Amino acid sequence: MYIGIDLGGTNIAAGLVDESGRIIVQGSTPTISSRPAEEIVADMAKLSLQLIKDAGKSVDEITAVGIGCPGTIDQENGVVVYANNLKMDRFEMAKEMRKYIDLPVYIENDANCAALGEYEINGENAGVFVLITLGTGVGAGLVIDGKLFRGFNGAAPELGHMTLVSGGEMCTCGKAGCWESYASVTALIRQTRQAMEKHPESLMNKLAQENGKVSGRTAFEAAKAGDAAAEEVVKQYAEYVADGIVSVENAFQPRIISVGGGISKEGDYLMNPIKEFVERTRYNRYMPKTKLVTAKLFNDAGIIGAAMNARNSVK
Amino acid sequence: MYIGIDLGGTNIAAGLVDESGRIIVQGSTPTISSRPAEEIVADMAKLSLQLIKDAGKSVDEITAVGIGCPGTIDQENGVVVYANNLKMDRFEMAKEMRKYIDLPVYIENDANCAALGEYEINGENAGVFVLITLGTGVGAGLVIDGKLFRGFNGAAPELGHMTLVSGGEMCTCGKAGCWESYASVTALIRQTRQAMEKHPESLMNKLAQENGKVSGRTAFEAAKAGDAAAEEVVKQYAEYVADGIVSVENAFQPRIISVGGGISKEGDYLMNPIKEFVERTRYNRYMPKTKLVTAKLFNDAGIIGAAMNARNSVK
Repeated sequence: MYIGIDLGGTNIAAGLVDESGRIIVQGSTPTISSRPAEEIVADMAKLSLQLIKDAGKSVDEITAVGIGCPGTIDQENGVVVYANNLKMDRFEMAKEMRKYIDLPVYIENDANCAALGEYEINGENAGVFVLITLGTGVGAGLVIDGKLFRGFNGAAPELGHMTLVSGGEMCTCGKAGCWESYASVTALIRQTRQAMEKHPESLMNKLAQENGKVSGRTAFEAAKAGDAAAEEVVKQYAEYVADGIVSVENAFQPRIISVGGGISKEGDYLMNPIKEFVERTRYNRYMPKTKLVTAKLFNDAGIIGAAMNARNSVK
Repeated sequence: MYIGIDLGGTNIAAGLVDESGRIIVQGSTPTISSRPAEEIVADMAKLSLQLIKDAGKSVDEITAVGIGCPGTIDQENGVVVYANNLKMDRFEMAKEMRKYIDLPVYIENDANCAALGEYEINGENAGVFVLITLGTGVGAGLVIDGKLFRGFNGAAPELGHMTLVSGGEMCTCGKAGCWESYASVTALIRQTRQAMEKHPESLMNKLAQENGKVSGRTAFEAAKAGDAAAEEVVKQYAEYVADGIVSVENAFQPRIISVGGGISKEGDYLMNPIKEFVERTRYNRYMPKTKLVTAKLFNDAGIIGAAMNARNSVK
């Protein structure tokens, strides 16, 4: 049995997870990301110990603790090298955690954990599996033969920072034209705003006013109601997502590419145009084809993946 | 000891290669790609047997035959699924080859073989190694922990068909904006032609006339002589190459990316602006960095890689 912790900018989510990736009990507590890292870890430990107690278990019955954390992780030493949103800089998270829970502690990037979680539950033992998460950014994780692929230095795969439009929109990473700056929800909101300005008559303006903000759903809602400008936004957005997915497919030939993040809940309305584009433009014509699916675990993926990373690391 | 064969559209190159990737003896014969596949294989076998004889060896001393072949390969069954330039369609190449040489025969994509060859000789045991070949297209091979990465279906990694400019120049693969349609030598020649038309005064026009054609070297030669329009072509081409390399680095975090193909002989004149772009735009700021080098083996890479693929497959 493992503790899996998904450390986010807003919430710490944790769960007690069995060998096969099933969550036995779970809970969460606010991150309060502005405070010192040590206090955050103290709350991660407190929540974990509470969950163990809630499940009627003891620490002796737990094999290891896995933590999914945003940013750049030195997995070998359990160090958060840099996590902008959490103000962590060369922070020895595993060592800090062991002050409270005397177990092996394994830290991994949160996008990698989500991929591993989704793979464990819905990956059909695919030899090559990719999870793409469309959110504030475009996150990605790659599982090869059941293990996370991290590159030689633990920093891969940053698929959101593959170029989609050379010299295009500036990305937060400092490079122009990253996939993320076209296919993230942040980008979709920008694209929606631009269309709203250009088409004052569009239903998108009314919806945004009613909701008090432009969100990733604004264009989808208006498009489903038949608004032409919104349909154009959704079509173009789906194409940006799809064009990057074809890059991922051509590069890795995964058996499964799973698309997650809140926006993937739009289901077929988003996935059908993506699939159509991928079918039409993929390089591989003669060998078995990649299967494109929507992710199913959503928030639980991080907890399960962190726990499964601990399980794989102990082995 | 292994036979390594690099089957190209123009020549069949083959060599007798030892366990460590050293070529003991090598030779070549024309492919004559228009003739039936069976005749090509007969010549591949004839050349191989001649080389064994030249080295004073016998077939008994050879462990296996490796073949690098363009197109889509079914490695498991030794079948060339499709190779446009060689008119091969579901061709059982391994079976055909065994009619002449009764040894295990392993077929692999030629770009993958080149990557494996370069890795074996100059890869410094990198855990993740990528060879990018700038030629008629943009070829690529990926070696992870000493083994070729081929995706779940044997068709990876087609890095040349990652998108560089969404909706941009049409690629021969049928998708718009592939890296290959900006960073191949074919693309460089197109870019050179466009600049020549725009700048009739440019030295590029004179050089092309003298050589009777526009080649991948036209812009480089003129740029080195101080021609402004040519300098612009080279600068832009280097940026296209570099922008794709950053995508590859961000996606895979290889310890080494090796750049090969005839154009890489331009050396620092091409590599320095590429390195400058990569340094400036790579995502990874905090972990050890990818090393960017030029390939060293050129034509031998395919022979050595085909042989080493046979060695790895026999194991």
